[in-house]
Amino acid sequence: MSQVEARLAAAGHTVPPSPKPAAAYIHWTQHGKLIFTAGQIPSRDGKPVATGLVGKDHTLEQAKKVAEVAALNVIAALKAAAEANGKTLDQVRILRTMNFVASAPGFTDMHLVANGASELFMLAFGTMHARSAVGAPGLPLNVPFEVEVVAELG
Amino acid sequence: MSQVEARLAAAGHTVPPSPKPAAAYIHWTQHGKLIFTAGQIPSRDGKPVATGLVGKDHTLEQAKKVAEVAALNVIAALKAAAEANGKTLDQVRILRTMNFVASAPGFTDMHLVANGASELFMLAFGTMHARSAVGAPGLPLNVPFEVEVVAELG
Amino acid sequence: MSQVEARLAAAGHTVPPSPKPAAAYIHWTQHGKLIFTAGQIPSRDGKPVATGLVGKDHTLEQAKKVAEVAALNVIAALKAAAEANGKTLDQVRILRTMNFVASAPGFTDMHLVANGASELFMLAFGTMHARSAVGAPGLPLNVPFEVEVVAELG
Repeated sequence: MSQVEARLAAAGHTVPPSPKPAAAYIHWTQHGKLIFTAGQIPSRDGKPVATGLVGKDHTLEQAKKVAEVAALNVIAALKAAAEANGKTLDQVRILRTMNFVASAPGFTDMHLVANGASELFMLAFGTMHARSAVGAPGLPLNVPFEVEVVAELG
Repeated sequence: MSQVEARLAAAGHTVPPSPKPAAAYIHWTQHGKLIFTAGQIPSRDGKPVATGLVGKDHTLEQAKKVAEVAALNVIAALKAAAEANGKTLDQVRILRTMNFVASAPGFTDMHLVANGASELFMLAFGTMHARSAVGAPGLPLNVPFEVEVVAELG
Repeated sequence: MSQVEARLAAAGHTVPPSPKPAAAYIHWTQHGKLIFTAGQIPSRDGKPVATGLVGKDHTLEQAKKVAEVAALNVIAALKAAAEANGKTLDQVRILRTMNFVASAPGFTDMHLVANGASELFMLAFGTMHARSAVGAPGLPLNVPFEVEVVAELG
């Protein structure tokens, strides 16, 4: 097991199998040592773990937990990318994340929701990343959160 | 004619001339073999082919067709990038697409709208890409769809 | 002083110190000569210079000025990145910008708001970039604009 997965396990998290893409795409592509992931949603066993808007159907604290689930799906995609290169998650560094929060009118704490994903990435990889967080009126399958990542293989 | 354009022609699609940018930007930039495109909208001959929100002014099927028009403008930008490098579209691979769908409240099938673009890219290039699809409350010129791409030259 | 900063100064703009990140992230990361910035908001001395929605709380012209403030924060991040490599802003080229405009229902001039940032970048660096501009129902801290950038070091 990679040290990344060991740190996640110590915090109670398991890297899931990479979920089936919800549409006509794949979960990651590679250019040199750069990895681009698809936008990952908070799904488990192929089903969204939450639906609706943050600030209406979900509190900030609930939304941060939902963001963790999406972040684990990012890590699953990065694990597949690493393994396809004969590496493990310990050779991965996240460079930049783009976070979308399905937001009720007036909700403006997208950055705090995104912390749910960012803090999990920091725990797992031990490095910091650049990041954007913005609102959306809705997201695919009515999920409250989506995150895509650019990473590098060491 | 490139094989990419031949496959598109067989499906009834023509790569248009790259449209005039709607504001202070250019359609593509290059770093090594990476190409970053500007966000492309569903315009033809300099005019939006559709305006309004998906889920209110457009059905899913209509929106998928609109997404194809934006995807053709992406391919036009990639063609210009390839030709500036003495290459053709046959040396292009799309790595990642970011799709925005102008969505009426309650519309959550952005991923299916984005399939309109993704399926055209797969038909044209014969490869799969990573992808994000999200909602927006509105887009420039009131178009229902916008897509930007990161690609590589072979 | 770099020529980039001299050109900005001649137009009345000063590159600020890079602001404290609003959450769990850093302002830039690097892969080879590629720089990824975090999404930058229109803050000065750690406080948003404007809040609310464009098309309701801000006119287009006001929003363009707000976008300039965010663009200066991008330049501050790029300056830090350049200096960490023993370079100056004169060795930086912006490749692609992603612009989010917090938009009131019916507002569809996101591309013109984004020009506030793009035109400042063009003035500063003397080069053009690829670009996307989209609407959002809201942004962190209720700011009306956010922009993230991919750039390269020469």
